[in-house]
Amino acid sequence: MGRPRKALLDRARIGATALELVDEKGDFSVPEVARRLGVQTASVYHHVDGRAGVIELLRERVTDAIDPGTLSDARWDTALAAWARSYRAAFAAHPRTIPMLMTSPVRAPKVLAHYDRAAGLLLDAGFAPERVMAVITGLDNLVLGSALDMSAPEPMWEVSGEADAPRLATAQDATGPDRADAAFELTLAGYLAHLRALLAGATDRDAR
Amino acid sequence: MGRPRKALLDRARIGATALELVDEKGDFSVPEVARRLGVQTASVYHHVDGRAGVIELLRERVTDAIDPGTLSDARWDTALAAWARSYRAAFAAHPRTIPMLMTSPVRAPKVLAHYDRAAGLLLDAGFAPERVMAVITGLDNLVLGSALDMSAPEPMWEVSGEADAPRLATAQDATGPDRADAAFELTLAGYLAHLRALLAGATDRDAR
Repeated sequence: MGRPRKALLDRARIGATALELVDEKGDFSVPEVARRLGVQTASVYHHVDGRAGVIELLRERVTDAIDPGTLSDARWDTALAAWARSYRAAFAAHPRTIPMLMTSPVRAPKVLAHYDRAAGLLLDAGFAPERVMAVITGLDNLVLGSALDMSAPEPMWEVSGEADAPRLATAQDATGPDRADAAFELTLAGYLAHLRALLAGATDRDAR
Repeated sequence: MGRPRKALLDRARIGATALELVDEKGDFSVPEVARRLGVQTASVYHHVDGRAGVIELLRERVTDAIDPGTLSDARWDTALAAWARSYRAAFAAHPRTIPMLMTSPVRAPKVLAHYDRAAGLLLDAGFAPERVMAVITGLDNLVLGSALDMSAPEPMWEVSGEADAPRLATAQDATGPDRADAAFELTLAGYLAHLRALLAGATDRDAR
């Protein structure tokens, strides 16, 4: 009331509203965002570059929760581990954005800057340039797979008659409440150990 | 025409129709399934146990493409690797089902039987029962994270001005067309190597 429309319709509010919709329903449309903001659809398009632009605002909003200090650690592997944990927590808060964000190209400058630091860290550590994006993608996959799993029900497997799945029932009965975290830490530890071994092998080869 | 309604409305057709809807739109409702099959919503409910029942039919349909022979390999690690690759291919064909299936409890008997074999394989290999579901979950996460990534655009990172993200641009320019597969194989190799090391450690401890 009395607030100018411009302030109401800044990019931050468009991103926040789209995120709200995706959290609730798994998707958004630009007309829905406009309706919720009480403005015309055309006014939204005036501020962003189409639906893809709104997706990037949403991406910035979710990834703002990733601790930017994590990638500053002097050791590449400790840095990646800290980044992965912070990144998982950020997406676990908005799991329904994951499929949308994984299937749209990253254009948000703040997010590109983040990946630029990760790529720099790996290049400086000695990873071959042609391997760097695969290394980053693998980390993305295990983080986002695990973030989705954090919304899984417990128990995830509903064995009604133990006779039907006796080994699964045994394993489930022995499972503690930390299944999701334990699984994430197993994949992360395995990945980093493998990357260290690859790097050591590459260094050996280079030194021959 | 002339076909009895019962044949039309079998569970397989309900599952196939729900899968079609999720492939197209990322979600389904039971009334939508009924409409597409040309029957009343109540008729669908007559054949399945609510929306959750339809999700399980859909789960069976997607996982039917996983080669059941993969888990029969005598070596647990070779078996898991083959299972993971077949499982990734099955879900890459229906990526929009992933968020839905990861967040609904598994009840489909055929799918539980699959997990029962995986749990048995790991228990027989010597993994502690309390660790088995975490080991399976970790594999699920990296497979499904990677299956989602297979629908990612190429390039995934759109660096407009190289000055803004120079290290990312270097890495992207060096990246071949096999980024997604290379990332998956890196995470899988790392995970299995880590599990082998854990198992060797546990065996050592048991033998002390």
